[in-house]
Amino acid sequence: MDHGFPAREESRLLHELSEFLSIPSVSTLPEHAGDCRRAAQWLVDQLFTLGCPTVQLIEGDGHPVVWGESPHVEGAPTLLIYGHYDVQPPDPLDEWHTPPFTPSIRDGQLYARGAIDDKGQVFCLLKAYEAVRDADGKPPINVRFLFEGEEECGGQVVFDLLEAEPERTHADAVLVADMSYFAPGWPAVYTALRGMCYAELHVRTLARDLHSGSYGGVAPNAIETLIRMLTDLKGRSGKIRIPKLYKSVIPPTKAERKGWRALPFDEAAYLEHEVTGKALTGLEQFSVFERTWALPTFEIHGIKGGFVGEGAKTVIPAAAMAKISLRLVPGLSLDFVRKQLDKAVAEVAPAYAEWEVRFVHGNDPVQIEVEAPQFALLDRAFEEVVGRRTVAVRAGGSIPIVPKLGMTGAPVLLTGIGLPDDGLHSPNEKLDLQQLWDGIRVFGRFFEMMAE
Amino acid sequence: MDHGFPAREESRLLHELSEFLSIPSVSTLPEHAGDCRRAAQWLVDQLFTLGCPTVQLIEGDGHPVVWGESPHVEGAPTLLIYGHYDVQPPDPLDEWHTPPFTPSIRDGQLYARGAIDDKGQVFCLLKAYEAVRDADGKPPINVRFLFEGEEECGGQVVFDLLEAEPERTHADAVLVADMSYFAPGWPAVYTALRGMCYAELHVRTLARDLHSGSYGGVAPNAIETLIRMLTDLKGRSGKIRIPKLYKSVIPPTKAERKGWRALPFDEAAYLEHEVTGKALTGLEQFSVFERTWALPTFEIHGIKGGFVGEGAKTVIPAAAMAKISLRLVPGLSLDFVRKQLDKAVAEVAPAYAEWEVRFVHGNDPVQIEVEAPQFALLDRAFEEVVGRRTVAVRAGGSIPIVPKLGMTGAPVLLTGIGLPDDGLHSPNEKLDLQQLWDGIRVFGRFFEMMAE
Repeated sequence: MDHGFPAREESRLLHELSEFLSIPSVSTLPEHAGDCRRAAQWLVDQLFTLGCPTVQLIEGDGHPVVWGESPHVEGAPTLLIYGHYDVQPPDPLDEWHTPPFTPSIRDGQLYARGAIDDKGQVFCLLKAYEAVRDADGKPPINVRFLFEGEEECGGQVVFDLLEAEPERTHADAVLVADMSYFAPGWPAVYTALRGMCYAELHVRTLARDLHSGSYGGVAPNAIETLIRMLTDLKGRSGKIRIPKLYKSVIPPTKAERKGWRALPFDEAAYLEHEVTGKALTGLEQFSVFERTWALPTFEIHGIKGGFVGEGAKTVIPAAAMAKISLRLVPGLSLDFVRKQLDKAVAEVAPAYAEWEVRFVHGNDPVQIEVEAPQFALLDRAFEEVVGRRTVAVRAGGSIPIVPKLGMTGAPVLLTGIGLPDDGLHSPNEKLDLQQLWDGIRVFGRFFEMMAE
Repeated sequence: MDHGFPAREESRLLHELSEFLSIPSVSTLPEHAGDCRRAAQWLVDQLFTLGCPTVQLIEGDGHPVVWGESPHVEGAPTLLIYGHYDVQPPDPLDEWHTPPFTPSIRDGQLYARGAIDDKGQVFCLLKAYEAVRDADGKPPINVRFLFEGEEECGGQVVFDLLEAEPERTHADAVLVADMSYFAPGWPAVYTALRGMCYAELHVRTLARDLHSGSYGGVAPNAIETLIRMLTDLKGRSGKIRIPKLYKSVIPPTKAERKGWRALPFDEAAYLEHEVTGKALTGLEQFSVFERTWALPTFEIHGIKGGFVGEGAKTVIPAAAMAKISLRLVPGLSLDFVRKQLDKAVAEVAPAYAEWEVRFVHGNDPVQIEVEAPQFALLDRAFEEVVGRRTVAVRAGGSIPIVPKLGMTGAPVLLTGIGLPDDGLHSPNEKLDLQQLWDGIRVFGRFFEMMAE
């Protein structure tokens, strides 16, 4: 395999990657704060090993940011590389075939939490730089590495840093490799990211839990109240009932829609292998691409209330809670949606219920121009290594830092080595090793081409 | 206080009761199986202390039954006394002012899980017998004590026992003191109990959890599917949408309704002090008594799905579960309702969802005649001690064993010393000590009157 390393190096690379993936750096769970720090330290060590003369562990109110600057090459362009070392919680644990923090290889796939989101991709970029830094006697370009530990939990450390020191983003281009191919063999660049408004909806209907024998039939049940509010907020058709939401959406251009229609897409295979369900739901009058890229969503991520232990408890619960989020598309700012969500909840809440929308975190949607010459270089690198140029697509997910990274006007190349079935945020998250080897070569070539 | 004991005995009685209440005999939780056995053993010891020549700990497939026979008195009538030593789970723990299994007295109230349901009432009957057994040189009546440990979890041990040995129910009357006064100062006997159909509703829409960024907008969310099914099963008005349910209900007689209208009832006080909510819900065209005594209910006792830890996880959950029950009134047999519930769930389940109704436990509703002469004796006993005869009411709750206890045709006196605000199945469950002292005297007098 041509990834710029001798084949005998592969076992060393896999050993290093396994070490990184073994650290349970779950940023949203306070008990893993120490693990997040260990993952950051692992990156610091890597950057020293790569010969970076400047390496910093930058503290803030949360998990630290890792910063590194490669040896300066006079006259060479500068690339800012962004990634994150934190991961999503691994639950439900019992659905993993091998433990989430014990990386395991089966059939050319490396299974672990963070394998693709985003440790595997961070590793790919580090190794791409390592592979080419001495090829011509000196590194081809100047790289500024920026790795944060709060991408999955909505922390502020990296935002505070770039607010205080915007000069850190000075670069000729920004590379964010936290994304996937559109399909196997189809590398992609991304023209938009959905924003997010994540909140908890708390409901209380009674001062205390009651016995359903004595009070069943008259006492307001908090779970029933909460779920009726939730089903009122989103109709059976998938339509979100939040005032002015759809009216505010900026629809995709005709050219964009045309590009999407040209993409290879097998809905039956998508349903079976990616969605793993029996049917797609949501606004049926819109295509899958429109529903996942160009329209807002309302999802219930978790729900809690009453007795869920073994056996039976005949309680009328006094309180209940759901975790919800909206994904935001161009036209829907976070501020606007927070305000409208509060209004909508107030409208659907019955007078007898006490309720609260507790905002957890969020960010605005992003649109990205893909006209800069660096996109053509990336296309060439992909074409050379995997035989196909990138396709321009959108992403359903959110990477809140992206607008800040591009604030100086440098083009932001949002791409990556993931595959659609990698299961990010799910049990048995994986990295296809062929994608890793290809990726190391692609980005190595991209660095070399930037220098030409 | 006149309860048949010298006043100096009260501290001993409270000490004994505290001992009983300190045992966390939560029958539905497997980890408390040993505690259930300790509670049973505590009753065995009591029965020996009361001089019972026959005391048995009867094993079965679950928690044991305790059986005792008082010293035989030739020619005296026989009373079968039923109670249960198991209790509901104490959660939510953080709402208790003092720990549930550390009995605490404040303002004449004894707080503990099981204080009124049903350990306090079992204790009351044991002490009523103790108080009068030597008053006339010999016990006034023959008592057969039957205490089970699975009333709160729907176990089968006592049912299996009475199926195999129905002669254990041979008696002139049956006394079940697991109930409450209708209101302070208003003792009651019960003419009906609601039955129950308790089940879990499991829903799965995906093989695995998905990332809401990638698949939000098209992937079926298991929580959303489950809650839409639940809100479909019970409408906003409180009407249960299960075919033929209301049509099958046998309505209360005119005489019964008339009796209910004569009961003292302050809806505002009921809402504030008992329900502890801001409004009553349910079928508004029916009175509170009809809604809680004469109509079926559909309650959601607990719900679980997705991520409910601290912070944010942007998952589309693949599976979700709710614990639900229907309370059944005369006309609605358990078999019928199970069948209709399955049908109703099948109707509201979308084609893309895998679902299962897992029946947990249940029982038929019960109607009880209150014409036998023993009811007049009980009225006299209450009148003598607390100054008022009983009122005939219904119960919203279920005591599954009641029909079995009355299978020989002996009258079943369903009564008790609880007060409506005792908070059974809730945090801070309590026993009013004045009710205990009165109850010991009432039942002691009742035993003596039976002998006359």
